[in-house]
Amino acid sequence: MPSHGPPDVPDSPDLSGLPDLDDVRRAAERIAPHAHETPVFTSSTLDRMCGARLFFKAESLQRAGAFKFRGAVNAVLSLPEAEARRGVLTHSSGNHGAALALAAAVRGIPARVVMPEDAPQVKRRAVAGYGAEITFCEPTAEARREVAVRLAEETGAVVVHPYDDERVIAGQGTAALEIHRQVPDLNFLVVPVGGGGLASGCAIATAGVSPATRVVGAEPARADDAARSLAAGRHLTNPPGPIDTVADGLKASLAPRTYRALAHHLERVVTVPEEDVLPALRLVWERMKLIIEPSCAVPVAALLAGTAIPHLTGAPATGAGDRPRVGVILSGGNIDLEALDWAAVDAWPELPAPDGERR
Amino acid sequence: MPSHGPPDVPDSPDLSGLPDLDDVRRAAERIAPHAHETPVFTSSTLDRMCGARLFFKAESLQRAGAFKFRGAVNAVLSLPEAEARRGVLTHSSGNHGAALALAAAVRGIPARVVMPEDAPQVKRRAVAGYGAEITFCEPTAEARREVAVRLAEETGAVVVHPYDDERVIAGQGTAALEIHRQVPDLNFLVVPVGGGGLASGCAIATAGVSPATRVVGAEPARADDAARSLAAGRHLTNPPGPIDTVADGLKASLAPRTYRALAHHLERVVTVPEEDVLPALRLVWERMKLIIEPSCAVPVAALLAGTAIPHLTGAPATGAGDRPRVGVILSGGNIDLEALDWAAVDAWPELPAPDGERR
Repeated sequence: MPSHGPPDVPDSPDLSGLPDLDDVRRAAERIAPHAHETPVFTSSTLDRMCGARLFFKAESLQRAGAFKFRGAVNAVLSLPEAEARRGVLTHSSGNHGAALALAAAVRGIPARVVMPEDAPQVKRRAVAGYGAEITFCEPTAEARREVAVRLAEETGAVVVHPYDDERVIAGQGTAALEIHRQVPDLNFLVVPVGGGGLASGCAIATAGVSPATRVVGAEPARADDAARSLAAGRHLTNPPGPIDTVADGLKASLAPRTYRALAHHLERVVTVPEEDVLPALRLVWERMKLIIEPSCAVPVAALLAGTAIPHLTGAPATGAGDRPRVGVILSGGNIDLEALDWAAVDAWPELPAPDGERR
Repeated sequence: MPSHGPPDVPDSPDLSGLPDLDDVRRAAERIAPHAHETPVFTSSTLDRMCGARLFFKAESLQRAGAFKFRGAVNAVLSLPEAEARRGVLTHSSGNHGAALALAAAVRGIPARVVMPEDAPQVKRRAVAGYGAEITFCEPTAEARREVAVRLAEETGAVVVHPYDDERVIAGQGTAALEIHRQVPDLNFLVVPVGGGGLASGCAIATAGVSPATRVVGAEPARADDAARSLAAGRHLTNPPGPIDTVADGLKASLAPRTYRALAHHLERVVTVPEEDVLPALRLVWERMKLIIEPSCAVPVAALLAGTAIPHLTGAPATGAGDRPRVGVILSGGNIDLEALDWAAVDAWPELPAPDGERR
C-alpha cells in the first residue's frame, strides 16, 4: 500500500536507545559533585598551523585521566539502590575500566574488572588503586567476555558497557555541554571516534544547545568502521582480529545505536593515517605541555593535515577573526611513559612563519 | 663612634636594587596584554601523599613554556624607546633565551642570543622560531660571556640578565601576585631557587599582598648555594666548574641582590637530593598529566619528601580542612622528550590508602 503521508516529511530517524538533550542535562547535574569541569586550552602555534582558532577541552585532566569517568559515574549513579549493591562489572581494561572502578568507589559499591593476564602494570595499578577487584583471564577477547559473563552470573554485578549504554552516552555528552558553555559559537567540534559513545553524546548535546556547530568525527585509518559506515549508509564493523593502531582507545567498532546517532548528527567522519598520530601527539606534548594519549592525537592530526575541515587546508594566515572557531575534545592522558620511543617519533612539520609575523 | 640609635630598632635590611610591591604591580599591568594568567591545578593524589592541600601554578603553560617570559617581557617593555631600538641580548640559552626572544618579538625589536655550538636542537629551534638571531660560540661559560660582551659593544644591544635585574625580578613576582588572587589564604608558597629571580620576586609580592604566607625555596642539593648562604648569613656561590644536576634551570648562583631578598623574606631554603628529582617529575607527568621540566620537580620533590614543610612529614590523613594550603610554582615545561629514559626513572613510592578511603 503506498504511503499517503505528505511527501516532504522525511522518515523520522530511529534514535531509540539514545539519550536526548534532557538526559545529557540530567547527567550533568548528577555527575557535577564528582566530575571535574575540565579547562579549555588554546595554542597560537597550533592555530597558525591549522588556520583556525582551536579550543582544546582537556579531558586528560578529568578524574581517572579521561572523559570515560563522565559516562561511568553517570551510569553508576543512575542505578537503583538494589542493583547498585550488587556492584558493577566490565571487561574493558582501558580507561573505562579505571573510570568504572573510580565511579564505583564514589558510590561505595564493589567494582569488578576482568583483565587479560598480560595487561600492562600501569593499567593494573590504576584499576587496583581505585579499589576494584581484578579477575585475570587469558589474553583473548573471547576469554574476557566469557569470564565477564560468568562473573556477572555468579555475583549479580551489573555490566556497564564502555559505550553501548544510554547512560554512558549521556554522561559523555556532558563534555560537549561544558565546552559550549565555556566557548560559545563554535563553528566546529572535532571528536575522536572509537565505539562512538563520546561522539554520540557530544553530537546529541551539540544539536541541542549549539545547533549551528558542525560535529566532525576522527578515527584511525586502521579502525575506520565509522567512516565506512557513514559512507555506506549502514552499520559496518571493523574486521575481526587484532587491529594494529597506536590509538588503542579507538579500536572498537560502533554499536548499532552509536552508528545511528553518528549517521544522524555528524557532518562527517575523517580517517587519520597511522603515521600521523604520534607526530601530532608529540606536537601537543611539546607545544601545549599537556600529556595526551595517542587516541587523543587523532582529531589533532586530522586538523593539522587539513582533512577535518577541508577548506582550511593551506588557509592563509588572515586575521584571527576570520578563522573558524573549532572545539577539540582531548579525550584522555593515560599513557605508559616507558612505552614511548621519542627518537622514533618525527616532529610535525611546521609551517613557515607568515611574512612579517614572528612566531 | 658608637651608634646612638634606639636599641630595639633593628638595622633596616638593604633592599637596594630590588623591586618593591608597587614595581611588581606595575609589571603586572605592563605584561598583562602579552603574558598568560596561568591556571592553577590541584591533585587529590598529591594532596594525600604530601598531607597538604596543594595548588600548582602552571607556569609551564606560560608563553615560551616558562615563567621566564614574565621577567623578560617586563624588562623589554620597560626600555626607553631609544634603547629598545638597539635590541636586546643574552647569553642564556635556556628558558630565558627563548623568553627574551619572544619578548623582543612582542615589542618588534631585534633579539640576539649567544649559544654554545653544542646547544640542543630543541633550544635552537625555540630561540630561532621566535625570530632571534643566534650567535654560536665555544661551549664554555667564558666564551659565552666574551662573545656577549663583544656583541653588545658592536651592536649597542641592551643585555638583559636572566635574574640579576630589577625589572626581571619584578616580572617574575607577578606569578605570585596571580596565585594569591587565584587562591587566597595560602599558608605556604614553595618556589624553586636557581639564580633567585623568581624566588625574590615571589617573596616580595607575597610579603606585600599575603604577608601571612610563608615562602619556602627549594633547590637541588648539588647547587645548594642559597641554602648555604642563608645558613651562613652571607652570600655564597656554587663552586666553579660544571654542576651535575638534571635540574638544569637551577644551576646558577644567587646574585648579591637576590641573596639579600631571600635572606630577608624566605622562611627557609631546602635542598633536594638528586635522586628525588626525576621520580617527582614522573609523578606529575603520570598523575597530573602536565609536562614539567626537571627544575620544576624540585619543589614537588621537597614537598613529597616532607622537607619543604617539615611538620607535614607523615601527617595523618585528617580532614582536608586541617591541612595547610600550599601554593607551588611549576616553573616551566621545556624538556627534550628524546633525552628522557623513563625505564630508568623510578616511580615515587605511594602512600598506602588510608583506612576506609579508596583512592
